[in-house]
Amino acid sequence: MPRLNIALDLPPPLPSLPNQPHPSPSPLQQLINNTLSSTDYDLCCIPLTNARWQTRWERLCLRLTEDEDLASPEASKHREEVDREADMWRREGGLSREEVNVCRLEETPHLIGLGPEWLDLDSPDEGIRFDSELALRAEMAHAIYVSLPTIIIAGPSIANRHFLPSYARAIAGLLQMNSTTTNTKISIRIPISDPVELISQGPSQPGTNPTQKLPESTSTGSKHKRMSSLSTRPMSIHQSQVNTLQQNQLQQQQQQVPGQGVRTFSGTSAASSTMSARTVVPSAAGDPCTTWEMWDYIRTVCGHDPRLSVTLDLTNPLPPSVGALARWTAEPVSYIWLPAGSFIPNAKGYPVLSKACQAFLRGMAKLSPTYILSGTTMSRHPAGGPTAYLQYLRHITTTPGPGVGMSLANGASAVGDLGAGYSDFLQAPLQPLMDDLGSATYDVFERDPVKYRQYEAAIYLALMDLPQEKTHAIAVAGAGRGPLVACCLSALVRAERKAKIYAVEKNASAFLTLQERKALEWHDAVDIISGDMRKVVLPEQVDLLVSELLGSLGDNELSPECLDGAARFLKPDGFSIPMSYTAHIAPVSSSKLHYEVSLPTRPAGAAETPYVVMMSAVNALSGEGPGPSGRCGERIQQCWQFEHPRKDLILGDDGLPLNNTHNTRSAHMSFHIPHAGPLHGLAGYFEAHLYGNIGLSIHPENMSLVSPDMFSWFPLFFPFIEPLHLPSNCELVVSLWRLTDRVKVWYEWCAEAFLPLEEIRSERRVSAQQIIGISSMGLGGGAPSPYMDAPTSPIYPTHGNYLAGGGRVKIGQTRLHNVGGKCSSIGL
Amino acid sequence: MPRLNIALDLPPPLPSLPNQPHPSPSPLQQLINNTLSSTDYDLCCIPLTNARWQTRWERLCLRLTEDEDLASPEASKHREEVDREADMWRREGGLSREEVNVCRLEETPHLIGLGPEWLDLDSPDEGIRFDSELALRAEMAHAIYVSLPTIIIAGPSIANRHFLPSYARAIAGLLQMNSTTTNTKISIRIPISDPVELISQGPSQPGTNPTQKLPESTSTGSKHKRMSSLSTRPMSIHQSQVNTLQQNQLQQQQQQVPGQGVRTFSGTSAASSTMSARTVVPSAAGDPCTTWEMWDYIRTVCGHDPRLSVTLDLTNPLPPSVGALARWTAEPVSYIWLPAGSFIPNAKGYPVLSKACQAFLRGMAKLSPTYILSGTTMSRHPAGGPTAYLQYLRHITTTPGPGVGMSLANGASAVGDLGAGYSDFLQAPLQPLMDDLGSATYDVFERDPVKYRQYEAAIYLALMDLPQEKTHAIAVAGAGRGPLVACCLSALVRAERKAKIYAVEKNASAFLTLQERKALEWHDAVDIISGDMRKVVLPEQVDLLVSELLGSLGDNELSPECLDGAARFLKPDGFSIPMSYTAHIAPVSSSKLHYEVSLPTRPAGAAETPYVVMMSAVNALSGEGPGPSGRCGERIQQCWQFEHPRKDLILGDDGLPLNNTHNTRSAHMSFHIPHAGPLHGLAGYFEAHLYGNIGLSIHPENMSLVSPDMFSWFPLFFPFIEPLHLPSNCELVVSLWRLTDRVKVWYEWCAEAFLPLEEIRSERRVSAQQIIGISSMGLGGGAPSPYMDAPTSPIYPTHGNYLAGGGRVKIGQTRLHNVGGKCSSIGL
Repeated sequence: MPRLNIALDLPPPLPSLPNQPHPSPSPLQQLINNTLSSTDYDLCCIPLTNARWQTRWERLCLRLTEDEDLASPEASKHREEVDREADMWRREGGLSREEVNVCRLEETPHLIGLGPEWLDLDSPDEGIRFDSELALRAEMAHAIYVSLPTIIIAGPSIANRHFLPSYARAIAGLLQMNSTTTNTKISIRIPISDPVELISQGPSQPGTNPTQKLPESTSTGSKHKRMSSLSTRPMSIHQSQVNTLQQNQLQQQQQQVPGQGVRTFSGTSAASSTMSARTVVPSAAGDPCTTWEMWDYIRTVCGHDPRLSVTLDLTNPLPPSVGALARWTAEPVSYIWLPAGSFIPNAKGYPVLSKACQAFLRGMAKLSPTYILSGTTMSRHPAGGPTAYLQYLRHITTTPGPGVGMSLANGASAVGDLGAGYSDFLQAPLQPLMDDLGSATYDVFERDPVKYRQYEAAIYLALMDLPQEKTHAIAVAGAGRGPLVACCLSALVRAERKAKIYAVEKNASAFLTLQERKALEWHDAVDIISGDMRKVVLPEQVDLLVSELLGSLGDNELSPECLDGAARFLKPDGFSIPMSYTAHIAPVSSSKLHYEVSLPTRPAGAAETPYVVMMSAVNALSGEGPGPSGRCGERIQQCWQFEHPRKDLILGDDGLPLNNTHNTRSAHMSFHIPHAGPLHGLAGYFEAHLYGNIGLSIHPENMSLVSPDMFSWFPLFFPFIEPLHLPSNCELVVSLWRLTDRVKVWYEWCAEAFLPLEEIRSERRVSAQQIIGISSMGLGGGAPSPYMDAPTSPIYPTHGNYLAGGGRVKIGQTRLHNVGGKCSSIGL
Repeated sequence: MPRLNIALDLPPPLPSLPNQPHPSPSPLQQLINNTLSSTDYDLCCIPLTNARWQTRWERLCLRLTEDEDLASPEASKHREEVDREADMWRREGGLSREEVNVCRLEETPHLIGLGPEWLDLDSPDEGIRFDSELALRAEMAHAIYVSLPTIIIAGPSIANRHFLPSYARAIAGLLQMNSTTTNTKISIRIPISDPVELISQGPSQPGTNPTQKLPESTSTGSKHKRMSSLSTRPMSIHQSQVNTLQQNQLQQQQQQVPGQGVRTFSGTSAASSTMSARTVVPSAAGDPCTTWEMWDYIRTVCGHDPRLSVTLDLTNPLPPSVGALARWTAEPVSYIWLPAGSFIPNAKGYPVLSKACQAFLRGMAKLSPTYILSGTTMSRHPAGGPTAYLQYLRHITTTPGPGVGMSLANGASAVGDLGAGYSDFLQAPLQPLMDDLGSATYDVFERDPVKYRQYEAAIYLALMDLPQEKTHAIAVAGAGRGPLVACCLSALVRAERKAKIYAVEKNASAFLTLQERKALEWHDAVDIISGDMRKVVLPEQVDLLVSELLGSLGDNELSPECLDGAARFLKPDGFSIPMSYTAHIAPVSSSKLHYEVSLPTRPAGAAETPYVVMMSAVNALSGEGPGPSGRCGERIQQCWQFEHPRKDLILGDDGLPLNNTHNTRSAHMSFHIPHAGPLHGLAGYFEAHLYGNIGLSIHPENMSLVSPDMFSWFPLFFPFIEPLHLPSNCELVVSLWRLTDRVKVWYEWCAEAFLPLEEIRSERRVSAQQIIGISSMGLGGGAPSPYMDAPTSPIYPTHGNYLAGGGRVKIGQTRLHNVGGKCSSIGL
């Protein structure tokens, strides 16, 4: 694991004294320098403004409800003066010198700025919302002025879900404030869980630290409960409450058409309180996703702006579900906020993290987040002192251990140095049939010992099935620089068989290497033939056709088309190695890949091309089938299969198939999505059956059994241009086609999402039977009720298909990608 | 109603005789010419190909299952010859001369071509799907070659919903076949209802013609049930059925990792049959939307291609719900297919349409569809003969009558000639503060008699509330060419009051007209003052401030900002006319507006600008509140209100407010969506309270009461760039803001969709209680069961918020539009 940045959340520094000459470096610079030079921290974290600013803002923009009674002329006059000052501030904006903690350009390079915690961008009071936004815009303007790299902004209130759109809109507005020369990033502090949601899911929370209490700071209500907005907004908090409680009456009043009398309703924002605040609940499956959904909402409103990231706050307990945690690995988590309270004491009293938390942090490490330690000086743990937290964090973030979730980066552990730098990097898939590969590319692939070991084993087994006495013939189709030829030669020795080897290669440059190897190593054992395997003529039919034409999805480098041509060489009872291969896909979420694919600097249609990617910041969305409806398949599903040689093809006079339609394929797969997430694309894998019990696999669940430590292939990524929001427990139907015309082969793909009704229905069935059981037991003893069958008719619709297929509601779909192979194509 | 095109579905013409010299005009030309010249039809409709083509395709591409036994060498050899011919056809494609009904360019101008009915683009058999697509591509290529304006393609099979993606992909591929010089449009024939769905909804079907039987042609299964695909596809229909029935076993087999033995599964498309065919059911609310959802799926897959339209087939009964029918008014319905069987005989035996069908067709007339009459010669009705259908259709499509659904085109009926050509035309809203209006624009607005009648009535009432003896003062703020001045003068006469009138106008050109009218008409009764109402000085304070600054949403032409400035003229107890105004919105669907907004020829950001539109091909998505959850508001909801004069503002030395933040507004509204549809935007309306009981309204439900026949304002349209799919019975939360900074005022908007869980829960509650009722009645007589309360605990989660707020699942959202007023702004 590479060294990760760790920041210290500093206590607010002493306010600068206005009338003393400024020292250089400033007190803040000195504080930062001292901290970083005396400890192992990389950065400091500090509130951008101080309590004076909070005091002024609250004086100007809030009013205690009790204060409404301004009977005395003095109070009234004072209020008017404050209101005038507030209106002047609203016009001019800005902070004053003594209200900010950071004011020099020199102070910011090693600094993370914290926005105020006390603002209420999602207050139920419209005036407080707008004034909070004005205040935050002042902080953002100041952050930009002092070139602060990042400002961390307190997240929305969990309780005020109804006003989350206002919070998100304010953030979208902040992102517009950067000019072309400035780039202060925004990170939203989002709690890892909603404690109320966790409680509602019952007592079993394996990931929760049992010694941890729910922190007081997790307010679930408005921050300014007892205050109302300023006078120029007619709707006070009092009226707002009235609205919530008496909305039906008010709505009736509003239904009066104008012109039929004086309106009794004088509020400005009639509709802003027609819903109770907290109405989003965990899904029926109990996916704890409230806080993630807040983030998802904000970033979607902001159009996936890359300058927006998450500061994941671990103050609250971890949710118990590994799946719910894993979704953060696909999000732009730039910071992880670790308060001292999230540590537990070990046997000696030193602060350590729970096993679940360690596993989670290890899983997050691939995002290279910066950790922010907070409250380390508050002596919450008996041993170790303030630096114990830092030392422990350094320890666990530099020692490997089990992470969280299923890794989709197959071979990542084995790739080692070879894979470094490839993480989430989009590569166009190779098109070896159209383009000749360079020697360096061959070199990389030939370094994979596993792949050729498997090939040699397969060839050995195939040879053992041939009679020992005869001299056989082997064709290596697409010999490249000769690694498979070498495998054949070794296998022949081991199997004590004799065979003539024909090595066919169409890349004229690679053919030079083959010439050299024949001259120096192979001599008469190998005949080398230059040309396309679909056209060259071999002097004899062969017993064994060996090729390595597979791409990440198996068939995506045109192995089926090439081997159709090479099958001409085979004797009627000859074998192909590989004998068959299959393609597999899984739906995934990845903000990073989505952003990379959508970059405006990419060529038009880039988002419609499949890419080869070593997947890192990627989360698999699908769970094990069959899901509540019983309709869904596995987590990763097979699309199709190719077998070689095809015996049933009709061939032309040239020995080639008359057309390529037999290599078209289609797959329609249904996935169960247990945890909500945005669908950004499909991950594609292959498995190949070489011979006997020998195979190759980059299928994440099988690879370690079939071909462990093989690293030649990264998965394929099929992007979706517009992310599709998938709620918890929905079903995703993915369609993928392999298509062909006279000149090319290409893929098209699309997806559709449904919410199933089965789960509810089966719950209902159980309930009904339970109830009957209770009733009959209570009234008539243990005998089954004569009405046992009765519930069926009122509860279930009688329509056959409704019952047979099970109901579902379509909730979204994508358009078709890469229609007609317009944007990407694999030339023939 | 304008005259609509009506086409005749001609019986297939006699096949041309291959060896006779071609006459000119051809037999088909003669047939078309005779038909159009001897009747009142405008177009003819004919199948593009004939039965010979069907026979050849079925011979090549299908195989009777019984035929599998090819024991005899002759049968086997024959099969191989056919397979070779099929493979040649797959390579070369194309139709032959005697297989097409249309082959000359001269034949097509008055022709609508029909694609074959017998193809199976969504067959469960992969081979039949691909071969059907190849056949359809051949037809499309021919249609393009002969410049056929439109080809109507048979819709997907309702029963094969699982393979709808394949159907849609094939259509997307066809759309790619047009070159830059050709443009053959595609229209998909979609049934108006799924008969099975209608039956499942019970017997009450007000819109259904009771004499109508379910037509035999509505096959709910595969068209090629007993046939399998050709031999080069290993999966025969038999295997496919095995897959469906025994999928669990097969899935287990597939789970074997390669290398662990020989695979027993040899199919190519393992996943294509893992779902039973018909699994989409009507929503819990019983919205009959199966066939519309098929269309919605296809056009979304095709990326809303404007060359794709609907041919709405009225063969099946109309669905009973007006709301379900109304959604078609927002779709690109180019053709309406009317078979003779959809007519009922009247008392005299002549064919007529049911009242429901008439109303539906009247509602659709605004889309100007072409009607296609079919089967008119089959003597299904005793009287009238073949032309009776045509005559009746001409009759009802040229006589006005009640349509279907709520009209959103306020004033459309009153607009008459003025509105002609404005239907669904996007206009940029006026910005009269930034831009000076031309005299022609004033002229159009002054022609609205209703608006000024209302103004004069309001001024009269206001004057009556002033003492008769004094001389008063009236300011007309934004006098334009003087219509409101004229209103004031008439009202003064009627009210027997005296007043000095000050007319303020900033448009220097309009001021010339005012000068002329003062000189010729008004003389000393009116003082005219040139300048911005926020800056000019009046010689005295006035009693009445009259203005007409309202836009379609009320405040969108900056009336609040302008009147804040003009309020300086008012005496402390003076009045403003209007006294207040409110903004209202409703979510709407409109393929046409979506397409117009997204046109690549529009400037960047065009889709983020609100437009003024006379809405025609638009469907309101919202229903009356509160919806099943009790959370939703009305069909059209109020966003906010502005009142004048504001007494609570803090003013600067210039008499103007210190800032404009008091004119910011926000609204968060929840709508119930009873019928599934794509959200394309928001329709915006205003209502104004002028004085007393006098108002102005373009609110569709109130306008006819408040200000009937007023036509000065069309609604505002806020577009959403990416349509949001809304399922039946969901909830849509819309946020709209009016924002301001120092230089401009603008709107931002976004939306979020939820599926509520309440409905299900309340159903469950009813069921449980019903069951208990039954049990206790059966076993213990009429006494309430002692377990009456028992169901609550197992059925409901105990978490307070779950119960209080009611559960909902978020299913989608939009991003924020027009962030920071970047794309559109109303300058101050």
